[in-house]
Amino acid sequence: MQQCGPSSPSCSTSDRLPLCSLNTAARGSETSAEPQKREPADLSRMRPIVIFYGFYLLCFVLGVACVVCVCLWNSKWRGGFAWDGSSLQFNWHPVLMVTGLVVLYGNGAVLYRIPLTWGQNKLPWKLLHAALMLLALVLSIVGLCAVFDFHNAQNTPNLYSIHSWIGIAATALFAMQWVAGMAGFLLPCSPISLRKRLKPMHVWLGGSILTLSIAACISGINEKLFFVLKGINMTQPYSALPPEALLGNSLGVLIVAFGLVVLKILSTREWQRPDSRPEDMAYTPLLQEENE
Amino acid sequence: MQQCGPSSPSCSTSDRLPLCSLNTAARGSETSAEPQKREPADLSRMRPIVIFYGFYLLCFVLGVACVVCVCLWNSKWRGGFAWDGSSLQFNWHPVLMVTGLVVLYGNGAVLYRIPLTWGQNKLPWKLLHAALMLLALVLSIVGLCAVFDFHNAQNTPNLYSIHSWIGIAATALFAMQWVAGMAGFLLPCSPISLRKRLKPMHVWLGGSILTLSIAACISGINEKLFFVLKGINMTQPYSALPPEALLGNSLGVLIVAFGLVVLKILSTREWQRPDSRPEDMAYTPLLQEENE
Repeated sequence: MQQCGPSSPSCSTSDRLPLCSLNTAARGSETSAEPQKREPADLSRMRPIVIFYGFYLLCFVLGVACVVCVCLWNSKWRGGFAWDGSSLQFNWHPVLMVTGLVVLYGNGAVLYRIPLTWGQNKLPWKLLHAALMLLALVLSIVGLCAVFDFHNAQNTPNLYSIHSWIGIAATALFAMQWVAGMAGFLLPCSPISLRKRLKPMHVWLGGSILTLSIAACISGINEKLFFVLKGINMTQPYSALPPEALLGNSLGVLIVAFGLVVLKILSTREWQRPDSRPEDMAYTPLLQEENE
Repeated sequence: MQQCGPSSPSCSTSDRLPLCSLNTAARGSETSAEPQKREPADLSRMRPIVIFYGFYLLCFVLGVACVVCVCLWNSKWRGGFAWDGSSLQFNWHPVLMVTGLVVLYGNGAVLYRIPLTWGQNKLPWKLLHAALMLLALVLSIVGLCAVFDFHNAQNTPNLYSIHSWIGIAATALFAMQWVAGMAGFLLPCSPISLRKRLKPMHVWLGGSILTLSIAACISGINEKLFFVLKGINMTQPYSALPPEALLGNSLGVLIVAFGLVVLKILSTREWQRPDSRPEDMAYTPLLQEENE
């Protein structure tokens, strides 16, 4: 595996931009006398990109499968949706948390890793990253409101289980991360020295929030299936693995698989957007870029 | 932050070995005419080491707190331990899984990151890593046997909840990881090219297993507290947060904090053992090293 760090002076930009260098090589081959000799090197540079898109496709498919699965579970087996304090209001909770705090969040997190975005100005991708994360945060907060409202209507206490503690911690950290990210990476007044110090913490906290989300989802699915599949009124208990239990368990497996693929994409160094190029190293405030 | 990759030729060994270079600089200062000038550079090189040991101490303290907490819960509130098919046998399950699959596993995973080990032959640390992981695996398997035996004695089905699916997946992947690690990194017949290809997968799967363990622990604690704190026979329900619920929830928080600290140590590049030194790059089979 290629081990060049983003600021390693021994690695040229083309070393860390296989797609860009491939395009350059391809253009060069039209006028070159030795196109065959370059091909094996190009193919070997193309390999990490192809593997990345394989993982990215897997991430996308698993994310869609998570959303389909959680919607199907709550619409078909749990009776659908409402906002009236009944159990139908609760059904918004798993749908919005899985869609916001897992799937949208994970897709927003891996956005900078897409090699097609590397050759372009980073600002639109920063704004898309922030917008996706804001949408994920809003969905998560509405998902929390759904369960708080439901509990209050049913006179059930809030925030006592370890599932709720982990879930609320994930959402609170996500909100703090979004505000700190906005202030640190988008506001014109934030100096580049602060951005450099903030970035490793932002990346680590991003992965940690996803880990907390996965733990909250698995404990939530487990709790819900034990609550509703009690084997009374001629229904099968959770332990008999009826179709609803299989669907809920499959949702859990899909969430874990999605989370691990996202964490794999985030942790693979050769898939990181190269930060050593001039437009990334120089301090370019948001408003200044917008005016240009 | 220092961004030198382990195989980056631009980074000298001393750049990536702050502790070693500090010692060298300290020795040099005894004969140097300008000891004061070197001090600030030494202090700045010492900083990542000091921060590492801060995280390592936190990891150790959180690990001990997890073990104390899970033992206290199951001995004081759950009635202690036995191997007779009763609920006292079940009590071994959380104790052994938290001790093996989380605390020992996490400590085994960060072993190579301890800077004091970097200047030494890697083989004894490899053997200690393998031994710690084997002990963690054995404890996890005995922890699974405890719950399987308990379920069988109570005529309760096994492996139906998403908690059990995630937990068994974590232990199975851990067993596969241990065997693949043993064959790939310790057996004399494994070529260095295989080791290089295996290492990124070994590191990623290591972190993934810990993520699965955390999810399994949180869902297990949540499930157990709902099962035992039902508010019958004059006892308080989970929702009233009696002392046992607070202890169980605190255990969950400690496990998550421990896991995130371990994942932080594993993902911080400047804390990785430098792999570019000759003794790490060259193929040195286990038996050959033992005979030397």
